[in-house]
Amino acid sequence: MVKFLDEAAVKAALHWDPLIETMERALIAFSAGRVLQPVRNVMTIEEGKRYLGVMPAAAEDAMGLKLVSFYPGNAGTGVPTHMAMVLLFRAATGEPLAVMDGRLITEMRTAAASAVATRALAKPDAQVLAVLGSGVQARAHVEALRLVRPFRDIRIWGRTTANAERCAAEVGAVAVASAEEAVAGADVVVTATSASEPVLRGAWLAPHAHVNAAGRAASSTTRWSAARSSSRIRARR
Amino acid sequence: MVKFLDEAAVKAALHWDPLIETMERALIAFSAGRVLQPVRNVMTIEEGKRYLGVMPAAAEDAMGLKLVSFYPGNAGTGVPTHMAMVLLFRAATGEPLAVMDGRLITEMRTAAASAVATRALAKPDAQVLAVLGSGVQARAHVEALRLVRPFRDIRIWGRTTANAERCAAEVGAVAVASAEEAVAGADVVVTATSASEPVLRGAWLAPHAHVNAAGRAASSTTRWSAARSSSRIRARR
Repeated sequence: MVKFLDEAAVKAALHWDPLIETMERALIAFSAGRVLQPVRNVMTIEEGKRYLGVMPAAAEDAMGLKLVSFYPGNAGTGVPTHMAMVLLFRAATGEPLAVMDGRLITEMRTAAASAVATRALAKPDAQVLAVLGSGVQARAHVEALRLVRPFRDIRIWGRTTANAERCAAEVGAVAVASAEEAVAGADVVVTATSASEPVLRGAWLAPHAHVNAAGRAASSTTRWSAARSSSRIRARR
Repeated sequence: MVKFLDEAAVKAALHWDPLIETMERALIAFSAGRVLQPVRNVMTIEEGKRYLGVMPAAAEDAMGLKLVSFYPGNAGTGVPTHMAMVLLFRAATGEPLAVMDGRLITEMRTAAASAVATRALAKPDAQVLAVLGSGVQARAHVEALRLVRPFRDIRIWGRTTANAERCAAEVGAVAVASAEEAVAGADVVVTATSASEPVLRGAWLAPHAHVNAAGRAASSTTRWSAARSSSRIRARR
């Protein structure tokens, strides 16, 4: 019988530490070529209005699929712009096992992947974390990255000052007035905005800085510019 | 809240007459270019052993996706070789609405599509139906096609005589000894076998015969030969 897990059930089952360990194993398996994961396929149902992302993946011991609907016009209607489901199958037989609400899984998995990268690549005694963005992913990244590095100074910048201040207060960080100020001297930088223009300049970064470019899952490639800019930075370092 | 419908719930909700009407509307919308339905994408996870089919579709008033796992090695283990889920989303907002067991939906939808074609294309007073195959699709096709034409002589042929006899007894048909005998003079012919070689020859068909080539959903294109052969026949008529 297929299990259905709504967000409350997912929340009760999903914890940062085992998730970060699991993401590390998953990324190692992926890099070793032991995971089959086609490039994400986003169906444009109606340009600018309706998108459906279909993301299957299969490994030796796991097979699953994430579905994400992206409806920009839902903004402000009470219905989220992104909704997701994650489906699991028994890898050995193909039997459907579980259908799970995908919102919290997406939120935590994204930040857990950054935590894996940060643990592997950032300065072991990293103290300063800069987060560009003040939304769900900003909060999740602070939670996850704190588990892998002993940050003492966490700076949040957002394009809307009030949001950055609220986010900073919630996670025990400090809101700063500019992205450049946030990044100056930071050991680890996270970009987690939906900005359509780059928010991070390579010249601002300390030479040893590690950048987690979470970016935005957008249908239009042009919206990836911020994430791509910082990915290039990370790739060059 | 997403509804989950297991096979029993699907069975209680799904009836031939409204399904045939719905399939007719869906096929008209598809032919008029009002449905977005990418070519079926079957992921080969392990050649000959594990396949996952991902089939999204979107129309103005409906959006959904079917997932089918195909594990040939499950044959004889008690776990079906094909398992399917059908997911529905609210077209206007992208909200997930329902997750449904896909086995019976697949069975009935396939035969309902043939019923739509038969109603549109076969002789109005068609009396003789020949079914090549004696499995699930053979039974479903007899049930569905009976609703659109006044068949009096229904012939079932299968490669395994005992299966054909059992199928014929169950649906009130007559088992015949050869495919050619089944097809001779038939007004409507259904191919519904998993044969890897063609089971129907064009020379056997009455000039007015309508052929529903259900064929086999296989991962390897070569297994489609039977269906493709009869599709070509249908296309030429």
